[in-house]
Amino acid sequence: MLIAKVIGSAVATIKDEKLIGAKLLVVREADVYGEPVGKPSVAIDTVNAGTGDLVLIASGSSARQTLETKDRPVDAVIMAILDSLEVGHETTFRKS
Amino acid sequence: MLIAKVIGSAVATIKDEKLIGAKLLVVREADVYGEPVGKPSVAIDTVNAGTGDLVLIASGSSARQTLETKDRPVDAVIMAILDSLEVGHETTFRKS
Amino acid sequence: MLIAKVIGSAVATIKDEKLIGAKLLVVREADVYGEPVGKPSVAIDTVNAGTGDLVLIASGSSARQTLETKDRPVDAVIMAILDSLEVGHETTFRKS
Amino acid sequence: MLIAKVIGSAVATIKDEKLIGAKLLVVREADVYGEPVGKPSVAIDTVNAGTGDLVLIASGSSARQTLETKDRPVDAVIMAILDSLEVGHETTFRKS
Amino acid sequence: MLIAKVIGSAVATIKDEKLIGAKLLVVREADVYGEPVGKPSVAIDTVNAGTGDLVLIASGSSARQTLETKDRPVDAVIMAILDSLEVGHETTFRKS
Repeated sequence: MLIAKVIGSAVATIKDEKLIGAKLLVVREADVYGEPVGKPSVAIDTVNAGTGDLVLIASGSSARQTLETKDRPVDAVIMAILDSLEVGHETTFRKS
Repeated sequence: MLIAKVIGSAVATIKDEKLIGAKLLVVREADVYGEPVGKPSVAIDTVNAGTGDLVLIASGSSARQTLETKDRPVDAVIMAILDSLEVGHETTFRKS
Repeated sequence: MLIAKVIGSAVATIKDEKLIGAKLLVVREADVYGEPVGKPSVAIDTVNAGTGDLVLIASGSSARQTLETKDRPVDAVIMAILDSLEVGHETTFRKS
Repeated sequence: MLIAKVIGSAVATIKDEKLIGAKLLVVREADVYGEPVGKPSVAIDTVNAGTGDLVLIASGSSARQTLETKDRPVDAVIMAILDSLEVGHETTFRKS
Repeated sequence: MLIAKVIGSAVATIKDEKLIGAKLLVVREADVYGEPVGKPSVAIDTVNAGTGDLVLIASGSSARQTLETKDRPVDAVIMAILDSLEVGHETTFRKS
């Protein structure tokens, strides 16, 4: 799963009817320190994440394995909010 | 989902029979300001998008989860037209 | 879908039995002018494409949604031959 | 499958209910000598791997083909711990 | 499908039970001359390929469409051994 930082949100009035009610967040892939390093994309939120959260994103067909995203035309879902990351014996990220 | 800008259209007479009637748009991945930054590809339109629109694209098997694309050999579908993007507390894109 | 140029063909005698009869073409991703820009890969042809054609390629599980590729171990299918591409108000490619 | 090195672990209290009980490891793609070369991501562990192990990762829908990951919203699973890699006639990696 | 060169093999004693009996080969993406250009990864062999062979690899869910890989957690399968590649009117690769 991608480690990503939530950096904002998206609004779309005109959309596939299966998207109605879905919360669209703008994310960027992040490193183990929680710093965004990748380019922006949009993911569906299923865990009440918000701007600034470091999250995990499941992509592809796996993005449709949550109750909220089943059978929807979405290819990226936020399915966890990270509390901490440990690399080697160092805690590189801790949720503030 | 990919943030992408619609930059044109494609015409193909010879195609898999399941593609008949599908509207083919040329898109490029875009940044949060709506500026195209990626290379061109082609996506099926299901939301009546047009050149200049900033859209969301679902890729892979997720592209087949709309009524128009079900069971079709397509791997990219435009399933939303973006009204606005907000990053941090700034509105980086607003549909004109 | 990937915009790609057919640049050649591949022959493979030893292959999974589900591949028997499949036509293997060598392709490279192309820009909107039809110029190859990407690295070579191999796709199954279902629309009688040939060297020099600009085509659309569906990848992943979507590559198995044609009659010819159903249930086969293939991840790239040529499912359309492009007649023309229009970007902005310019026709950037027209089949000769 | 990706050759990857386990470099750490991730903790997430808030997550999709299907993720409960899943062990989250931080991995980086590695070369044939076992040296990490790629950027970090997170994979589900199903083979009791630990930091320092060189492993194989299956991605996409294939990540859901183990008993532990079936129907879960995960797109990367560690499904083997490498004992050795041989390239040409040289053993480039051996588990210590 | 990826054009790839088999450069070696991998051994893994600890693995998902569905992997038992699977032959793991180390491969690198190759150009049309058969020269390896990409980074190493591991694919399941179903066609009795060996080091030095130029092969085709199907990735993602398509990797599970052979008898040997059905329902297994694998995302890359060697499903053909290339005899030759022709680009333009030149034979760029011929199996020796």
